[in-house]
Amino acid sequence: MNTNSGKVTLLSAGPGELDLLTVRAAKALAAADVVLLDDLANPEIVTLAPQARVIRVGKRGGCRSTPQAFIERLMRRYAQKGLHVVRVKGGEALLFGRAGEELATLRDAGIPVEIVNGISSGFAAAAGLGISLTHRRHCHGVTFVTAHTEDHGEPDWAALAATRTTLAIYMGMRRIGSLASALLASLPAETPAAVVQWAGGANERRLLTRLDRLAADATDAGFGSPAVILIGNAIGESMETDWAQHASSHGDAAHACAA
Amino acid sequence: MNTNSGKVTLLSAGPGELDLLTVRAAKALAAADVVLLDDLANPEIVTLAPQARVIRVGKRGGCRSTPQAFIERLMRRYAQKGLHVVRVKGGEALLFGRAGEELATLRDAGIPVEIVNGISSGFAAAAGLGISLTHRRHCHGVTFVTAHTEDHGEPDWAALAATRTTLAIYMGMRRIGSLASALLASLPAETPAAVVQWAGGANERRLLTRLDRLAADATDAGFGSPAVILIGNAIGESMETDWAQHASSHGDAAHACAA
Repeated sequence: MNTNSGKVTLLSAGPGELDLLTVRAAKALAAADVVLLDDLANPEIVTLAPQARVIRVGKRGGCRSTPQAFIERLMRRYAQKGLHVVRVKGGEALLFGRAGEELATLRDAGIPVEIVNGISSGFAAAAGLGISLTHRRHCHGVTFVTAHTEDHGEPDWAALAATRTTLAIYMGMRRIGSLASALLASLPAETPAAVVQWAGGANERRLLTRLDRLAADATDAGFGSPAVILIGNAIGESMETDWAQHASSHGDAAHACAA
Repeated sequence: MNTNSGKVTLLSAGPGELDLLTVRAAKALAAADVVLLDDLANPEIVTLAPQARVIRVGKRGGCRSTPQAFIERLMRRYAQKGLHVVRVKGGEALLFGRAGEELATLRDAGIPVEIVNGISSGFAAAAGLGISLTHRRHCHGVTFVTAHTEDHGEPDWAALAATRTTLAIYMGMRRIGSLASALLASLPAETPAAVVQWAGGANERRLLTRLDRLAADATDAGFGSPAVILIGNAIGESMETDWAQHASSHGDAAHACAA
């Protein structure tokens, strides 16, 4: 453990709207000397860190605008100067992204780390749809999986379908056709499916459809990244939705709507 | 849609510490007329709702102190009187619990609902262990599943193991022996496993071990509900942990520690 007072806070920025940050996250930002900002986080988050030097280190799925090694080097360098570095990651820091590598780097350097949890976009998507991810009538759990093969390899879609859990698929828009086809080998064509783009953000868009029409409907409606794809019978509960906060579809016809 | 101004906020209380609430949740509590309090939520949360009438409607896994139907009736009754009802649920409201039934009831009654997401204990447990739930070296996702059979039926442990995702098992302490045995039929004995009791709370306790010793070690160390059981190679990253915020074990020997 190094002796200076430097440390890193691995901070979950949540899905978009700043009031979805935890109170703890807001306090950490207010105390930050340096903010390393992920480009999936709401850029307005820097207004909560008025005294901090802000460095944008975005890294969109596929196109690497900032190499991971460089981000880790920055965290080490500033923390070893005795500064409080807040590494802001979109959504929940411990779900996808590279928190594992960043934690290992900081541990190896003996730099204290605090982790501040946040709201992952899959939960914000479910809130937008007005559904539980695990309605007990339909399933006994939910699986969060990434289709970003560079990072995690292609998931075993048949094995995932066999769990009968709700599937929350991250970074899947660029292979929505192939993953839907793979799942259709194991799941009924009419399995409810949804796409929520910018979940939890001011510009949230939702699409409700069924597995066999998922890719075509998402393409027709112009849905793109960042978005969460939700598949499973629990998603069907949203089909009944008809209330103020959560516009939604009726019957099983596809229907896109802004938040 | 009814015409009075009553509404229900389905509010996620998070895993324990009040500063893990979102800013949006704190605002909703401050504006509440009635608070229906889950017994898995930190009771101190009522200090954030000074003007609200507080009704405790706890319902621990297994022993039903308050019937679900009665809770739903209370929500409807107060909202239909024009009041702002905040239904406080421990952790993330859309993960397990009965949010699905409560949302359906409120929709049927035409009562507007706002859902406020929160931190589920599985994420707080990972923060306590200092790990990503989805380290890309080990897996491409995480599955949240309940072992509370009354609610969701016994999960298909073989199918879950086959996904090679990290498993975050809720409400599993009373059948930790049988679920560990079931998973040992599909996963190596040395698969890293952890138990985190009161994750994210002031009295958080963590146990790090391996799948074949999970049940015995948890029993010996006196771990009980509420706790999250984490199983998978990504959990093994915590074995290396040796830093200020997150005491942990070394090697693969079991080791329990308070937060």
